[in-house]
Amino acid sequence: MNFPSSLPARAVIREVGLRDGLQSIRTLVPTAHKIEWVRAAHAAGQREIEVGSFVPPRLLPQLADTAEVLAFAKTLPGLRASVLVPNLKGAERAIAQGADLMILPLSASHAHSLANLRKTPDEVVAELARIRAARDAAGSSCLIEGGVGTAFGCTIQGEVKPAEVLRLMQALLDAGADRVSLADTVGWADPAAVARLCEQALRLAGERFCCGHFHDTRGLALANVHAALQQGVARFDASLAGIGGCPHAPGASGNATTEDLAFMLESMGIDTGLDLEALLALRRQVAGWIEGEPTHGSLWRAGLPSTFARRAAR
Amino acid sequence: MNFPSSLPARAVIREVGLRDGLQSIRTLVPTAHKIEWVRAAHAAGQREIEVGSFVPPRLLPQLADTAEVLAFAKTLPGLRASVLVPNLKGAERAIAQGADLMILPLSASHAHSLANLRKTPDEVVAELARIRAARDAAGSSCLIEGGVGTAFGCTIQGEVKPAEVLRLMQALLDAGADRVSLADTVGWADPAAVARLCEQALRLAGERFCCGHFHDTRGLALANVHAALQQGVARFDASLAGIGGCPHAPGASGNATTEDLAFMLESMGIDTGLDLEALLALRRQVAGWIEGEPTHGSLWRAGLPSTFARRAAR
Repeated sequence: MNFPSSLPARAVIREVGLRDGLQSIRTLVPTAHKIEWVRAAHAAGQREIEVGSFVPPRLLPQLADTAEVLAFAKTLPGLRASVLVPNLKGAERAIAQGADLMILPLSASHAHSLANLRKTPDEVVAELARIRAARDAAGSSCLIEGGVGTAFGCTIQGEVKPAEVLRLMQALLDAGADRVSLADTVGWADPAAVARLCEQALRLAGERFCCGHFHDTRGLALANVHAALQQGVARFDASLAGIGGCPHAPGASGNATTEDLAFMLESMGIDTGLDLEALLALRRQVAGWIEGEPTHGSLWRAGLPSTFARRAAR
Repeated sequence: MNFPSSLPARAVIREVGLRDGLQSIRTLVPTAHKIEWVRAAHAAGQREIEVGSFVPPRLLPQLADTAEVLAFAKTLPGLRASVLVPNLKGAERAIAQGADLMILPLSASHAHSLANLRKTPDEVVAELARIRAARDAAGSSCLIEGGVGTAFGCTIQGEVKPAEVLRLMQALLDAGADRVSLADTVGWADPAAVARLCEQALRLAGERFCCGHFHDTRGLALANVHAALQQGVARFDASLAGIGGCPHAPGASGNATTEDLAFMLESMGIDTGLDLEALLALRRQVAGWIEGEPTHGSLWRAGLPSTFARRAAR
């Protein structure tokens, strides 16, 4: 395993709290609050936000207003608004509504794929090819990201072989994905496994391997980000207040926490473009909207070190 | 900054919950429970335990029974029982009671040193020389560790210069310390700073730089451990259920969590000698004894991955 001698100078935190976070909790956050969240996140410097998911509202009523949130996000300068799409039907909505990026999740675990998506992984690859054809036919510039989930193991199936993860990543690219990403859906990854798989994914996909998505189920999300950073990965999904989870990991805590991750990166001298005080203020606001739901993270409680501003400005 | 091409094959987690943890909470844990904790931790594979502190009982009534806990710990085969000593007087007790190792804390922050220890850092170095003379005069084999705290910054003073940390580390060695360690007392360290300082400490002290002590105040403890591991550090302080804190970091969460850290290391293929199921059982027991006190960590909630035993046995 190789460690490059320098870390990335910049990294992007893609906010997924509005999708991965809100879909995992019972509280229905009103559209006006979601719009305020997107507005304030953009004001705090976030430039990539997953605003929701184009799934049938009866499955995820929490995200039924995705089109409205997306429409607002599109009014903000420099913001790349993405949505999750489970299939061609969702992708057609993403294209019609002008999303900048759509993410098609694929589960490298056959068992998880059948349980969650009712398709085999290779059927999802075929769906991506149809999405690519539809996108091109529409003359849309919406990017297509194939997100390979359960990439480090699966609660249902157990072990997931790296070779299968990489095979599916290649298949997604061959089917027309513009980009691919890796997700530790159930929180089984460790820094050594992350370093190994990211190194291989970068060798396979180069810059088209664009993002790491690490759940904090067992407390390793930031250590895993650190391992991925050292391989050259410079975009990470994270969720404000760490909200989120996985239906197949009961009691599990959520995503990497946006504000803690931003603190780590900025402390390391890696530019995120984020205003951490503004993020912490937004975190307080969001935590208020979802009072009673589990939230995570540590920075909000401890606050920023007194020397932090100076260090971030360095 | 260099990253060695391989991680350590083995790492030691030194349990500090009985000292750093219990001194930070209000609950007085009875001696019988502490003894049960030491017994079960040893049974789970822990071979280095900080059992308490020889400070005046009026200052830390929680640790007034350190001599009794130490006496029990000494009955367990292969266990290295350590104590914290704030000064010569405490060291004399540690020597008389037959501790295997005593840790003299020094604060690299001048302001923190005056506030916490009522001595300058260099006065602590002089105290270590007196402790060394007393140890040698007694013909004791008790190891002396100089623990350099606030090594990554300080809530009172702000910035702490790495050059000052290294100067004090050298001074401790020159004064007769057998070993030295680094502590991020207030949770300001980040993986880049940890990598830099550990690399320099190893260059200065070689194998006599023996341990990293990372607080999880801002969620970075395990990422910081990962960075230190990559430099070759292979011993870490941690606290079961993450209990602990710092009087100068209000609201701060505690130490690196023993069970989460053990999970990370074992997942990475680094042998800790620990039985994680037994540690989780002990965690439940300890959490019951200190009910109402803040505890931390994630593994206890999510449980071990189903493939874990197989991976650990690999």
